[in-house]
Amino acid sequence: MTSKFLSTSDIESIILRIGIDLFLDALIEHLETGFAALGTTGVLIPPRSGIHYTDPKLGLIEWMPASIGKGLATLKLVGYHPSNPQDQNLPTVISSICVFETTSGHLKGLLDGTFLTALRTGAMSALATKMMGNPQSKKLGIIGCGAQAVTQVHALSRVMDFDEILAFDTDQKTLDSFSDRIAFTGLSVRRFEKQTIEQLLEQSDVLCTCTSEEPGTGPLFGDFRNKKALHINAVGSDFPEKYELPVGLLERAFVAPDFYNQAIVEGECQQLKPEQIAPELGTLLNQPEIFERLQGELSVFDSTGHAFSDYVTSLLFLHYAEQFSLGTDIALECIPRDPKDPYSFLSPAAILEQKAAINLQRTS
Amino acid sequence: MTSKFLSTSDIESIILRIGIDLFLDALIEHLETGFAALGTTGVLIPPRSGIHYTDPKLGLIEWMPASIGKGLATLKLVGYHPSNPQDQNLPTVISSICVFETTSGHLKGLLDGTFLTALRTGAMSALATKMMGNPQSKKLGIIGCGAQAVTQVHALSRVMDFDEILAFDTDQKTLDSFSDRIAFTGLSVRRFEKQTIEQLLEQSDVLCTCTSEEPGTGPLFGDFRNKKALHINAVGSDFPEKYELPVGLLERAFVAPDFYNQAIVEGECQQLKPEQIAPELGTLLNQPEIFERLQGELSVFDSTGHAFSDYVTSLLFLHYAEQFSLGTDIALECIPRDPKDPYSFLSPAAILEQKAAINLQRTS
Repeated sequence: MTSKFLSTSDIESIILRIGIDLFLDALIEHLETGFAALGTTGVLIPPRSGIHYTDPKLGLIEWMPASIGKGLATLKLVGYHPSNPQDQNLPTVISSICVFETTSGHLKGLLDGTFLTALRTGAMSALATKMMGNPQSKKLGIIGCGAQAVTQVHALSRVMDFDEILAFDTDQKTLDSFSDRIAFTGLSVRRFEKQTIEQLLEQSDVLCTCTSEEPGTGPLFGDFRNKKALHINAVGSDFPEKYELPVGLLERAFVAPDFYNQAIVEGECQQLKPEQIAPELGTLLNQPEIFERLQGELSVFDSTGHAFSDYVTSLLFLHYAEQFSLGTDIALECIPRDPKDPYSFLSPAAILEQKAAINLQRTS
Repeated sequence: MTSKFLSTSDIESIILRIGIDLFLDALIEHLETGFAALGTTGVLIPPRSGIHYTDPKLGLIEWMPASIGKGLATLKLVGYHPSNPQDQNLPTVISSICVFETTSGHLKGLLDGTFLTALRTGAMSALATKMMGNPQSKKLGIIGCGAQAVTQVHALSRVMDFDEILAFDTDQKTLDSFSDRIAFTGLSVRRFEKQTIEQLLEQSDVLCTCTSEEPGTGPLFGDFRNKKALHINAVGSDFPEKYELPVGLLERAFVAPDFYNQAIVEGECQQLKPEQIAPELGTLLNQPEIFERLQGELSVFDSTGHAFSDYVTSLLFLHYAEQFSLGTDIALECIPRDPKDPYSFLSPAAILEQKAAINLQRTS
């Protein structure tokens, strides 16, 4: 009984064989189908938990479980170590995803969670934008041009025919490098300054906020009332007391969270009363009649990171790995042939050798 | 940046190269040193948690974290599926252990947790027996002769010079096969019946209870007062309301749990008041003056499974794997070269190929 391990080069092979654009298209489609069919029966997605420490460095390791009663469960393991970039030239977040068979507890596979999280976060915004954004949207505004912005632009460009990116970042270097990082999408970047951020908002048809503002310092901009139709994906990293959007705007908008229980603790929904919050994105997918109206209005997708999107994304990678015969199969779990003898996973030859050695010891 | 995966044949190689006896000796020694040095500073061992489901089958997947502030943390992943033996010829428990670097969140290694748990459970009882049992002990009583009994007999035989095993099990088949399963220790088995269980207790110098009694059906035997010195390892699977030992005996005995917070919820300590419970085994290791007295008295090690013993055991295997150049190194985490570009983990050649494909699309 083996487990399938996907290396970074297996992930690369999948991306190259499918094509980076078509892979995202497939992921968006799988997320749409998956969330629409999710329902509640058999779904187990408890809140993330983890261990937080300050020694040897400030950091945490978290696990995000998802089981939906279809024979598989995923557990995303997430390390968050803010000193990584400076101390070790590593990203703050390093992650992997375990896939279990819930019929037996067997670890079916293990694969990256870092790139997968970036992809699924982009794909979820793309799905929300396809549903709630104006199909004629041409200008995509980006506030916060770090890592998350790259997959936001890429994924959203797969569902809308944008002609320009309107970009702002408080860090000039990040803003400088942004057009290079998204050059592969073919989209050009128009830069905005802190003084002209209102123009960015006015001209955007769709907006993604992907900042890492400290808790207590938001919102990113003041409320603006002269705009009737705009879809916003509020993506940036989430914490209690961290807000990206002004409460006035949220109160006027249709605000759909990815995951209600998480969004009211660490998302934009913290700023709203329960009756001001729309159903979760997955629920809305089964109410398509609502979208036509929304496309001419103010809507917000409150993205906090749904463990089911990790589930869908990791299974899609495992599916392609199987199709292309990729991955390394390793027998990891020492399964005994006789359940009452823990040593019986050893090969019969090894057991004989061991017994011979013991007899030798005894007679010597 | 790679992760080290140990296969079952890597585990086998380590066991064969070191020798199964000397490996256990080393493990007992590492557990003794590790628990004695554990202290409380930087130690994070939160209670196990998990997801429990009934669809498609009754089962659960649990995770047991352990971090002790020394740069590494372990997370044991445990599947418990009671229908495994009958439906799939698999053990009820299937498990693996993740080892993380807490300086970065990087997954340093992954290895089996099934065999490792069997070993460490035996080794912990051996450590407790070495500390609290009479050094002249000759007869080892075993009540419940399933899988756990095998590593109990093996590990305890490394710290005491037993000349005979006194065995009882409610299941005749299990009792029948027991002497074969422990034949490698060179110890012979004397069988007892339900009617003669009191004789087993009277004649034992050390006793291990390793049953899977249903909650609410214990204790395994009535109290017995005509025995002054006996060390008992209460090992069997633990649940709320599951007891193996009679409360009267516990009240007269020195009862040391492996992990207080766990033992009062699911161990023998459920039956005691806080003031009747001795310090944890790890604490006692720093009070060696207590042991000489205990060796002539009634003592109980309440073993519920300590995540730190998984930590010690998995690091010992990784240490030997490194020494013998075993294991498979896989780059699992897609670490971007530019932290602001999630796609930059792709090889430069792959990125070029992808860009060429995109340009081709665009010009066609």
